[in-house]
Amino acid sequence: MSALAFNNSKVQQLRRLLGRRSSRYDDGCFVVEGPVLTAEAVAAGLDCQAQFWPEGVDDSIPGAGRVYPLAEGVLERVASTEHPQPPLTLVAIPDSEQDSAGLLAEATFVLVLDKISDPGNAGTIMRSAEAAGADLVVLTPGSVDHYNPKVVRASAGALFHVPVVTATVEEVADSGLQLFGSTSHDVVNRTTEAYTSADLTGRIALVMGNEAAGLPEEWTDSVGPINRWITIPHSGRSESLNVAMATTVLAFEAARQRSNPRSNPLR
Amino acid sequence: MSALAFNNSKVQQLRRLLGRRSSRYDDGCFVVEGPVLTAEAVAAGLDCQAQFWPEGVDDSIPGAGRVYPLAEGVLERVASTEHPQPPLTLVAIPDSEQDSAGLLAEATFVLVLDKISDPGNAGTIMRSAEAAGADLVVLTPGSVDHYNPKVVRASAGALFHVPVVTATVEEVADSGLQLFGSTSHDVVNRTTEAYTSADLTGRIALVMGNEAAGLPEEWTDSVGPINRWITIPHSGRSESLNVAMATTVLAFEAARQRSNPRSNPLR
Repeated sequence: MSALAFNNSKVQQLRRLLGRRSSRYDDGCFVVEGPVLTAEAVAAGLDCQAQFWPEGVDDSIPGAGRVYPLAEGVLERVASTEHPQPPLTLVAIPDSEQDSAGLLAEATFVLVLDKISDPGNAGTIMRSAEAAGADLVVLTPGSVDHYNPKVVRASAGALFHVPVVTATVEEVADSGLQLFGSTSHDVVNRTTEAYTSADLTGRIALVMGNEAAGLPEEWTDSVGPINRWITIPHSGRSESLNVAMATTVLAFEAARQRSNPRSNPLR
Repeated sequence: MSALAFNNSKVQQLRRLLGRRSSRYDDGCFVVEGPVLTAEAVAAGLDCQAQFWPEGVDDSIPGAGRVYPLAEGVLERVASTEHPQPPLTLVAIPDSEQDSAGLLAEATFVLVLDKISDPGNAGTIMRSAEAAGADLVVLTPGSVDHYNPKVVRASAGALFHVPVVTATVEEVADSGLQLFGSTSHDVVNRTTEAYTSADLTGRIALVMGNEAAGLPEEWTDSVGPINRWITIPHSGRSESLNVAMATTVLAFEAARQRSNPRSNPLR
């Protein structure tokens, strides 16, 4: 195989990995774009397998894998942003993600995103998860893929520091965590309490619903996997908080209570 | 003046208003893009002066002002987004914004953004301000303009519901509000306390600094307009929270304390 043919097949792989979720899981890897995130991936101990730089540019990042050249204009054609910065880095999906049941069994503070579709929201929530000290982020089937390049970018490296797995809300419930469902509008047969009145100090999962639909309406006090319903009382119009902001507020209230159990309103 | 010439001058105005802060203040108006935000502006009682629709499209919004046609392709050339939705709506800047001293004198819960530069952050913070029940948002000179089209869009209508003014941090201090400066890294001669330990129930202003630089390093316990320094203790890397997320966390802790003074840790 000529060097050119080899590179062409690598470029095809990069394009597939950036564009298709199934390719990422078939190949067991995803793409990190740019020097800052690549350095974060290396620092976090991820398995970086290859870094692609435009021919003639020699800023290769130690630990980010073997260097491959990209012909002129290829970076711009393949990358997911309009003004891409090299390198494109091939990173292995951590094996640990296979063991969602094991991670759930050990976790004490989990954020669950049920059918979240916006990559920016998913990435921001991973940042909140890291900052608030959550052990694990769960995305349900039907959510945006956490290795989607827009999620990778929006997470600003948090994705490399907090484990993220795919599981159903029912699987989270089966792990013995107490599930707090977030609800932003009145639904029949849901008893809601203000998030600041709920005891968030135990083994908990905060469960957030889809941007438009919320959590399934058929889930109530007695039906479905949710143990308690919480809401964020707020001023202004109901649309004023998006799901990423709401998750940030809930996660930091949990962090506040967990760092100082005396401040828990129920004790 | 022919109808065409008239329309050309209106199109030039739209372009200037979208592109230049000085034009917005010279003309006393700004542009709202799309049907959802235009309807929000009408519902909020803003003075909508004209709505521009592609010729032949008749979805004009009641209350959004006189309808003007846009020749084919003009919407796409003038609007600030890649795939614009009509209308472009000309809205008067509220007169009340002129009286920043009066608004500050009456306010009890203010968010101050000092030299915030990212439009998405500014817009998100306006959403938090509305949801957390802040009276007023202050942008200091040197911050992104709140009528920048990206800020208008990111605020998702919050800009029409919470007054926003331009003033210096010193002017905020002169109004008798207690200033809590947010600080995310150690600075010499700043005594910081956790935001959950601070009493945020009085007449307060939460002061947030620039995305990269924070608040001026020369402002300390004894120098500058800040009365108290607060910080958000968090897990993970220091970059994990951006300024919009940090503001959301602080504003909702203030809302929590203010809605339930008994839960204030200091009482």
